[in-house]
Order: sequence, then C-alpha cells, then structure tokens
Amino acid sequence: MPYFDAASSAPLHPVARQALLAALDEGWADPARLYREGRRARLLLDAAREAAAEAVGCRPDELTFTPSGTRAVHLGVSGAVSARRRAGRRVVVSAVEHSSVLHAAGRFVVTEVPVDRLGRVSESAFAGALGPDGSGEGVALACLQSANHETGTEQPVAEVAGACREAGVPLLVDAAQSLAWGPVGAEWSLLAGSAHKWGGPAGVGLLAVRKGVRFAPQEPADERESGRSAGFENLPAIVAAAASLRAVRADAAADAVRLRGLVDRIRARVPELVPDVEVVGDPVRRLPHLVTFSCLYVDGESLLHELDRAGFSVSSGSSCTSSTLTPSHVLRAMGVLSEGNVRVSLPPGTESADVDRFLAVLPELVAGVRAKVGAPVAPVRSEESGGADESPVVDALGRRCPIPVIELAKLLPQVAVGTTITVLSDDEAARLDIPAWCEMRGQEYLGERPSDRGTAYLVRRVS
Amino acid sequence: MPYFDAASSAPLHPVARQALLAALDEGWADPARLYREGRRARLLLDAAREAAAEAVGCRPDELTFTPSGTRAVHLGVSGAVSARRRAGRRVVVSAVEHSSVLHAAGRFVVTEVPVDRLGRVSESAFAGALGPDGSGEGVALACLQSANHETGTEQPVAEVAGACREAGVPLLVDAAQSLAWGPVGAEWSLLAGSAHKWGGPAGVGLLAVRKGVRFAPQEPADERESGRSAGFENLPAIVAAAASLRAVRADAAADAVRLRGLVDRIRARVPELVPDVEVVGDPVRRLPHLVTFSCLYVDGESLLHELDRAGFSVSSGSSCTSSTLTPSHVLRAMGVLSEGNVRVSLPPGTESADVDRFLAVLPELVAGVRAKVGAPVAPVRSEESGGADESPVVDALGRRCPIPVIELAKLLPQVAVGTTITVLSDDEAARLDIPAWCEMRGQEYLGERPSDRGTAYLVRRVS
Repeated sequence: MPYFDAASSAPLHPVARQALLAALDEGWADPARLYREGRRARLLLDAAREAAAEAVGCRPDELTFTPSGTRAVHLGVSGAVSARRRAGRRVVVSAVEHSSVLHAAGRFVVTEVPVDRLGRVSESAFAGALGPDGSGEGVALACLQSANHETGTEQPVAEVAGACREAGVPLLVDAAQSLAWGPVGAEWSLLAGSAHKWGGPAGVGLLAVRKGVRFAPQEPADERESGRSAGFENLPAIVAAAASLRAVRADAAADAVRLRGLVDRIRARVPELVPDVEVVGDPVRRLPHLVTFSCLYVDGESLLHELDRAGFSVSSGSSCTSSTLTPSHVLRAMGVLSEGNVRVSLPPGTESADVDRFLAVLPELVAGVRAKVGAPVAPVRSEESGGADESPVVDALGRRCPIPVIELAKLLPQVAVGTTITVLSDDEAARLDIPAWCEMRGQEYLGERPSDRGTAYLVRRVS
Repeated sequence: MPYFDAASSAPLHPVARQALLAALDEGWADPARLYREGRRARLLLDAAREAAAEAVGCRPDELTFTPSGTRAVHLGVSGAVSARRRAGRRVVVSAVEHSSVLHAAGRFVVTEVPVDRLGRVSESAFAGALGPDGSGEGVALACLQSANHETGTEQPVAEVAGACREAGVPLLVDAAQSLAWGPVGAEWSLLAGSAHKWGGPAGVGLLAVRKGVRFAPQEPADERESGRSAGFENLPAIVAAAASLRAVRADAAADAVRLRGLVDRIRARVPELVPDVEVVGDPVRRLPHLVTFSCLYVDGESLLHELDRAGFSVSSGSSCTSSTLTPSHVLRAMGVLSEGNVRVSLPPGTESADVDRFLAVLPELVAGVRAKVGAPVAPVRSEESGGADESPVVDALGRRCPIPVIELAKLLPQVAVGTTITVLSDDEAARLDIPAWCEMRGQEYLGERPSDRGTAYLVRRVS
C-alpha cells in the first residue's frame, strides 16, 4: 500500500530501527550518572551528537537535542529573541513558515514577508523587512525555512543569510523538510530539524545555535542539554535519529534523482489527465520528493478519502489542519487555489509502478468527487443568455468549499460579458478560491466587501 | 551486575520493549491524518491514553502526554498558575520537591513549607502556608510530591489535598516516584508522572488536569494533545509507556512486599556494619524500593566510584547534581548529614543475593574511602588535653567535604569541655554537615557567622 505522505512523517528507516533496538539495551540509564550504565549512556549521547552535528554542519557543542522539531523551533525562537531584547522584539518571517515558527514568533512582533505565486520570498523584500518599519521596534530575529513543507519550494536561504549578516540580525533556518537531502549551505545562526521527517523516530528534534550567537533560554532549565532543553534525554531515540540521518544522507543523491523523476512525472501528467488542476510550487527550485496540486470544484477531504480507499495515503496541503475549516496559510500566502488540494510526498523507496497506479486512478476519483458536488463537468462554455439580471447574486451562505466556486462557475455563463456577479459566502476558503478561480478562468476579480452575513465577493465576467 | 538506581531511571520493562517494537511498525504515522496509517496511529494513541488514564485514576480527556516528566511539571505549573492570575502568583511547595517543580515554581513567588528530619511536611504547616502571608500575594497553586525521590519519604498528600480544597487552591502532585506502585489516592487537581521511572521508555511524561481545574497553557500551542503539549506525538514510546505502566501495576503489590524486605535489610544492617552512618528518611511511610544513608567522613563521589568498581550502580542523594558542588536541597531541608550520601533504589527484579553482596562489600569500601581522607578510624574519644588554646580554630578554607568535618572531629577531643571551636570553611556542604555532625555526636552547634573568606561555624564541646 503506497504511503505518499513522507513530509508528514517518514516511515522508520531500517537503520533507525536497528539503532533504537541496540540503544534500548545500552542507553536506558541516566547519562548524567557516573556509574557504568550512566557512562555508557553518556558515550552513546556524545557519539550521537557528533554524528548529528556533522550532518547538520555544526560543532557538537552547538547542537541540542529537543523532544521534537516543534520544540526546537519554539526554544530557538524564544531563546534568540529574548537574548536580543535591546535590539527590539520584532521577528521577520516568510509568510509560508511552518505553523510552529509562526506560533513561536507570534509571541513577539511579527513582520511577514510575502511570497510569490510559487511560494518563494524575494531576497530584496526579505532584506527590506530587516530595516526600520516605522514602528520603532527593531528586529531581533529572522526566520526562513530551507524549503516549504506544503509545496516543496526552496527558499533563497543563502541570499537572505547574507542580508541578515549585513543587517546584524541572526537567522533561524527551519530545515525540517530538507535535512534528509543535505546540510543547509548558508550562514545560518540557528537551525531546527525533526528526526521523524527523515526516517528517524518520533521524539527527537535538533536545535543548533552557532557559537557567538546570543541565546537566552526562556524556560525553566535543568542540567540537561547545556540548559537549553529540559527533561531526561530520550537517548535510544536520539541514537536512532543520528544513525538514520547519516544513513539517509549516504543515499540522498541517488534517492533525489530517482524521486525527482517520479515527481516530474506527476507534475507533467496530472494536468494532462485531470481537467482544471493547478500544480503548485516552484517547478525547479524545490525538494525532490514533493509535489502539490489543487483540483477545482473538489472537496479536498473527500478526495483524500477516495484516494485512501484506493490505497494511497496523501495529505492535504493544509498540513496539520485536517480538522480545521480554514485553508492552509501557505496556499493563501501564495494566492493559489486551495480547493481539492493534494500533497504527494514520496518516501525514498517509492516504486515507479505505484506512481503510475496513482496517475491511473486519480482522474476517475476526481471526476467522481466532482460529480457528487454537482461540479460543471467540462470547462464552462461562454454563451450569454440575453436580458438576464443585471446584478446577479450567488447566495452560498452556509455552504462549504467547493460549492461557492461551483455556483459561481455555473452562473457566470448565463450573464452578459461585463456583468458583475456577487457571491455571498461565509466559508473561509472562498476568500482564496474565488480569486484563484478568476485567475484560472481569465475572469476579473473585483474584490470583497463585508456583508450582513459572511462576505460578498465581486466577480466581473470579461470573456 | 546489580543496578541499584531505579529512582533515576528504571531498566526498560520487557512489556515496554515489546510494545515499543510493535508500535514502531504500526504507529509511526501522524495520528492527525485521516488515511489508514494515520487512523491506525490514532487508535493506538487513544488506547494508550485510556490505559494510562485508568492507571493514573483520571478520565482519558484529562490526560496529556508530554515529552518528559520534567515537561509535564513545567507545563502543569505554568498553566495552572497563569490561569489563576487573579488569585495571585504565589506557589506553595514543600522544600523537598523535585528540582523541576522548584524551577517551574521559581518563575512565580514561592513559599516553601519546611520538612522534618524524616523529610515529611506537616499538614498543618502546609495548610497554614495556603493562607495570607502578609505580602498581599494570593496563592495560585500548591505542589506536593507523592513521595520523595531521594529519601522515599511519603508525603501526607490526602491531608494536604483536603487543606487545599478548603482553601480553594488547586494541588499539583508530582507522582513521578510513586506511579509504579499505585494511583495517588487523594483529590489532586493536577498530576505529573514520568514513564522511564516505572520501566517505560524515555521521552514520555504524563500531565493530568482534572476537568473543572482552570488551566491556561502558556507556550505556543499546536493542535496536538488538546493544545497542552506541542510537537509531534512520540507514539511508539507512548504506547510502550502505557503498556508497561499496566504491567508494572499488575505486579506492584508482590514487588512491593519483596523489595520492602530487601530495603528493610539494608536499613537495619548498614548502621550495624558501618560506623557513623545516618539512615535518612521515614522508616515506615516510604516507597518500598528506596533507602538512603549518609556516611560520616566520606566523600560521596569517591564512595560511588568504589561501589561502581565493585559492580554496584547507586546514586548520591543529590539527584541530578552529580556535577555540582552543593549538597542536595532535599538533605539540606531535612537538616541531615549530606557527606557520603548513598541512595539505593532497587528495580523489581533485584535478587536477595545482590543485596547481601552489597552489604558485604560496603563496610570495607567505606573504610577505604575514610582512610584515604584521614578520617578518625573509631568514634572519637572524649579525652581532654588540659590547658589548650581557649578559642581554637580549624582552618579548612579551600578544602572540600568531608575534610572540614574530619578536622573538627580530630580537634574536638583535644579541647576542654565547654570550649568553643571555630571551623572556617568555604565549602557549601559544611553548612549542612557540621550541624549534622554535632547532632550525631551530641555536641552543641552554636551557629554560623560570615568570615573574611567563607563562613565561621561555631561548635561547643559539651561532652
């Protein structure tokens, strides 16, 4: 059964499993103790730190093990910002950072740098945000992911790191999605990672803080991990994390070539096989194993469910928010369609035949989901029905994505070119998907205004 | 090789190992996902929560898994205090709480309730501390351990819980050391535990918050663990933790009887076999597997080292502080000797023969360590040497424990009864050990005063 959601959590690497088993026997004691079992645990911890530091590209004494990638980000952001209180309390982030970065930065004053339709920040916009913003609040920290977790788009980390150095602002790089593929080749100040993203076990994150970077841990500390992450070390998992990172790296170049080929096939074939699909993210500067696309007139959760029934485990781009009603902040920041969003992220061992089978079943499944919600079956014809209502309204209040867009798509061919349609909707996804639909269909989006209930979205038929 | 430090970290229980292995295969995916692997992970997580909640004695929706016991305490204290800002910011704790509790409480205003020489708080003193203290700062939270991690002394949790209820103050119980033996049979509001203390894996703590108890998480949250503990769940370890708690509980009654017998043997025999030993902690109301004693004129680290060479892994009562120079805050609060402190905590499988062997080697090892530091070999004779210095001084500046006490013990028999000896010392342990020595030897401790360097301790020979 093909599992295509490696970006959520990669299946445990065989080396991780093996190392974990060995360390359960050798590394259960407290590494702070001086007796035999404690010394043995300490040796394992030291060796794991050296191996992980080498893979990250830092010194062992710069590396802290945390209980998760999320904790690494939280501890890194709060420690770095707090140490630079005098500089200010502003944190500059890209608009598409992982929610853990946004949550941690949200404790301070946040400046979000927008991204383009491919999900990439511009170096110059990021550099500009490092300067004064008129509020008088200086910048304590900048955060930029190495690559995006929903679209795979790589960020210009080296260029932004240069701008940060010039501005005297430390840069925290969230490398959770890219560490499997190689070290971050840029002058970062802090770096965060997560072992279960590279095939290591759950329960291990990495926080690297370069020597010389000011850092003031904000939480109650103990003597563990140099006072940077409190609590008994999860040693067997740490050992497994370090061993598997090394193993994954040994195969990274070959895996990247293979997976990039499979992903390129999906990128090329899906728009050919499925009508009204938008493939999302940078086509070139991206992670090798990840591709995201959105399907017009499709309820993402239904499509995921159908794919699951067909044996494919994929994710909605809206990572970590399967239970919420709002579309992903990443897709929103990119201004792309969020309807029927599917993220495919392939684990290293993915078979070519599984990708082919995915491509074989997808068109039918999308068509089935579309039929259920009454979506237009073919691209909507542009035939005017004369003498219709001059200010037509689609009342989609109380109806969830993708209904508002479907109703709009059905009404539009019935009105005269030049007519403005008002779509009333209280579904958050409409805010993103109505403009995205206009762009895909070449219609003019005039904007939104508050309504008695929900929001009124204005669309003018131009063709 | 007998491992006698279960209170630091218990060896992994076979059931934990088995459950961990199974869950590595079944539970590596994200339980928030809706596909097959995610649903399977969610089922495992739900089942583990139910099992752990039953063992703790709470509802599953009251129980949060955290990455460690330390994190459970930190999150519990900060969430409970912050939710009661209006009541005040004072936290009442016993003076012998685990450092994680003291560190977390230290963010607020702390009232420490003293303990007696057995390490137990009095219910009435604790109840008194819940009332106004003249500062105008109200009490937000009370914290009391179920049993002490260094001495095994059980605290009067039920009585203190009653006092808290009357005062309208929530009670957090740190049950890390006792959960293996049974649920905390008292009306706690919050409870913290740690899996590797009961034979579960590292990387799992428990935080239970009773329904109706006000709680305001203070850290950046995500959708995991009801917003109370951020970061990807360490699911295989959680499954192993729950399974092993259940397994440990099934044998708890029988293990308790067996280990209590072994511990009683140590408690009785050590003072017979080794001169000048103080057995520490409550002789009756205590954990079944743990005993602590201190040896006069002994450097604890040297003794631990000798025991390790003889094959015994024990801890110094000064938990988590093997690298510091200050004696344990627990022993200090009790006012007992900290020199040559040894904590023996037996894992369930401990053989009777191993305890006998421990008792067989201990006297010789203590004697050896004492000989190295020039300790008085026998109880010091009380023979006066007439006409000596009338205000004799022991200058032990720059000398570490146990030297100051040894020099005092050597000088005392040489001065007239009624003479006051001044011991100059800059070693923190002297503050605890000189009064403790006086109590053991029936001499009068007159107190301390600051000196040019270090502190002057005044001791009057009375016998």
